[in-house]
Amino acid sequence: MKVAKFGGTSLANAEQIKKVCDIVLSDSDRKIVVVSAPGKREKTDTKVTDLLIACAEKHLATKDAKAELEAVVKRFKDIADDLKLGNEIIDEIKTDLENRLKLDTSHKEVFMDAMKAAGEDNSAKLVAAYLNSIGKKAQYVSPKDAGLLLSSEFGNAQVLPESFDNLKMLKDIDGIIIFPGFFGYTVEGNVATFPRGGSDITGSIIAAALKVDLYENFTDVDAVYAAHPGLVNNPVAISEITYREMRELSYAGFSVLHEDTLVPVFKAGVPVNIKNTNNPTAPGTKIVLSRDYTPSTHVVGIASDDSFCCIYVSKIMMNREIGFGRKLLQIFEDEGISYEHTPSGVDNISVIFKQNQLKNKDVEQRILYRIKNELNCDDVSIDYGLALILVVGEGMKNTVGTASRATTALANASISLEMINQGSSEVTMMFGVRQSEAHKAVISLYNEFFLKN
Amino acid sequence: MKVAKFGGTSLANAEQIKKVCDIVLSDSDRKIVVVSAPGKREKTDTKVTDLLIACAEKHLATKDAKAELEAVVKRFKDIADDLKLGNEIIDEIKTDLENRLKLDTSHKEVFMDAMKAAGEDNSAKLVAAYLNSIGKKAQYVSPKDAGLLLSSEFGNAQVLPESFDNLKMLKDIDGIIIFPGFFGYTVEGNVATFPRGGSDITGSIIAAALKVDLYENFTDVDAVYAAHPGLVNNPVAISEITYREMRELSYAGFSVLHEDTLVPVFKAGVPVNIKNTNNPTAPGTKIVLSRDYTPSTHVVGIASDDSFCCIYVSKIMMNREIGFGRKLLQIFEDEGISYEHTPSGVDNISVIFKQNQLKNKDVEQRILYRIKNELNCDDVSIDYGLALILVVGEGMKNTVGTASRATTALANASISLEMINQGSSEVTMMFGVRQSEAHKAVISLYNEFFLKN
Repeated sequence: MKVAKFGGTSLANAEQIKKVCDIVLSDSDRKIVVVSAPGKREKTDTKVTDLLIACAEKHLATKDAKAELEAVVKRFKDIADDLKLGNEIIDEIKTDLENRLKLDTSHKEVFMDAMKAAGEDNSAKLVAAYLNSIGKKAQYVSPKDAGLLLSSEFGNAQVLPESFDNLKMLKDIDGIIIFPGFFGYTVEGNVATFPRGGSDITGSIIAAALKVDLYENFTDVDAVYAAHPGLVNNPVAISEITYREMRELSYAGFSVLHEDTLVPVFKAGVPVNIKNTNNPTAPGTKIVLSRDYTPSTHVVGIASDDSFCCIYVSKIMMNREIGFGRKLLQIFEDEGISYEHTPSGVDNISVIFKQNQLKNKDVEQRILYRIKNELNCDDVSIDYGLALILVVGEGMKNTVGTASRATTALANASISLEMINQGSSEVTMMFGVRQSEAHKAVISLYNEFFLKN
Repeated sequence: MKVAKFGGTSLANAEQIKKVCDIVLSDSDRKIVVVSAPGKREKTDTKVTDLLIACAEKHLATKDAKAELEAVVKRFKDIADDLKLGNEIIDEIKTDLENRLKLDTSHKEVFMDAMKAAGEDNSAKLVAAYLNSIGKKAQYVSPKDAGLLLSSEFGNAQVLPESFDNLKMLKDIDGIIIFPGFFGYTVEGNVATFPRGGSDITGSIIAAALKVDLYENFTDVDAVYAAHPGLVNNPVAISEITYREMRELSYAGFSVLHEDTLVPVFKAGVPVNIKNTNNPTAPGTKIVLSRDYTPSTHVVGIASDDSFCCIYVSKIMMNREIGFGRKLLQIFEDEGISYEHTPSGVDNISVIFKQNQLKNKDVEQRILYRIKNELNCDDVSIDYGLALILVVGEGMKNTVGTASRATTALANASISLEMINQGSSEVTMMFGVRQSEAHKAVISLYNEFFLKN
């Protein structure tokens, strides 16, 4: 059995939906289909989810969102008409949207989540209706009926553990299941959504719950590439990558999958295949537990992420002071700051974190003051505008010479290294550079590991 | 004004003491002389401090340490005879030692410190007596009279802040001051010693208190070398090095100065000159606040230290969990373990520390268990036998290509890198390797940075 998830561009219009259904019908193992809301039909188009957000906000502000509601209905109607589905399904969708607008608005985030989820929910109904219209056995299943329970962190919900047992009921349903992505229900019965892009997460949870053979994630690209196509010309496609490698790349700017997507399938050991709806015969990228590698394929990708800052702390004899590091991190915890790395020397330590967490100059000054005074430090300073560049690949740690190749490539490109961090993760070597040098750094590392072989 | 400190081999016999006095008298700025206890006269000899420890332990065990006391007296008598000082000074030393043996033994560590300090104390009296005997104005000053107050951590005492004011009285003493190193007094009036090798610390404290022009540290080597002579053949001598560089090298196996020595002079900005009693005209090694460097002299030394272990912790989505790092370090703090570094990846972190802190298998198992269960981790493991190799040099961080040269040298020597840590300290790049490869690693880095230029 396979779970196949389709992204927004794969459901943007009738033609795309037909492609999706062709793909689903071409393999009888594709039993569960998770769908996104209709995405952009062309570059300047607006996604249905964004139309829904605009509609909800207009309603909250003026109680009159008729025009915005009509825009959403029109998107669905255009698709239904092109699929020759008749008016019944559109009436159903319109009623659904009107009912959502009548919901209690006293908790804005609860209302917003109910509105945002309408895109996926009605997209799933539409696909099921189309499959039925061409004589195929298919049915929409609501996350509520399937027991997909989420935490009440609206807009950023987490799956509750009991969902995995609940979802096993999907096995007993006959025919193809069309399941809306992106949302579930709280224990109290409210709609709650994952972060944007969260349909990937829905697919992963179902795949894990049912321990299916494969989780197929259909997008609009042929594969995951070894570097971001916006940074490197025609990067090579990755045919096979491990979960761990993919997690590290996702962390640093590889946005093919939502960062949280891989957790459920990784824990359940279900392999993932990233494929292209518009080119379904291409092999795509397989995400697996382990892969074979040779010295020339041990690096799988180069990623980068920027807008980091670094607080540098020095205190002579720091390394003798038991509890120093813990007290330092306590200050960051008190300020709700999630840090990334803490490289340290003999008498000094740096804390690296996303700079947007320093909401204003006061927070920055308070943190620096507390470190200096509570920890009695000699010197405390802050530096903004760092980028982290990741060289990712299984087995790299044990391949003599990878660090040498990487640092030599960076040196040849005259890039000054602010930081090197290798040693915990067995799959990543991390370099800190000035943000202005990040692009050049990615290119030089890509050339070294992908063009030289 | 200069403070000149002389180590144990410089005071091991009459001939050496004459050298010391010649050196002191050759420069009228050498106003304060700090002396160690007489050290080894030749390789198989026993240091006076070790004779004193044996004497004290015998006394504690049997109350009969006559023979051991005689051995100590004989060492001093041999020197006094060769210096033609007559019996008065030896009677004084003998009485002093006998009085120490009569001290209260109910607190073993208090008694031991009083006994250990006798080496330096009587060595200072002897040198002062010799200078007087040749018609020079010199006087022994007791740390008690000078107000050198230490904490009650016997055997590992810390200087109390008020000492720096108290010691200023030394300025008002006429003639040459002979001051015993290694010990001071607690507020209650007990003798307390620094760790072994602590005469260096005494000299540094006095130099800082008086803000002298130079702290001369006379040893039995011509200079500090760019690598340990036991690891590299004829390493080059370092002519100038900064405090920060010296601190990093001291940390990892450069034992020329006790690790704590530089703190007082660094804070007071007093430069240090490491010199050789047996070759006093050699320029030695200057330790300064800042130095000039070129791309070919930006690396000043290569050091290594071994017997580290690494606890590896992985937990998917760890980087999102505010407080994870703090809770992890709390466990180490609870166990009294001082860690060195915590390199981290996206979903994992390692804690590196000296493995002798895991006193037994129970402690190890308890820590692993607590991490796994209290932090709900996916995977926790421990690895022993790591060495840390340090490449130290000011300005290195901003010199493009240093990392490349270092990692390429290591790769050419087929050394697998377990860890790279660069980014906090501006003066050190750190490599973790298997202990069995540490020697090879030091040689390859030394060859790269010192033989290629």
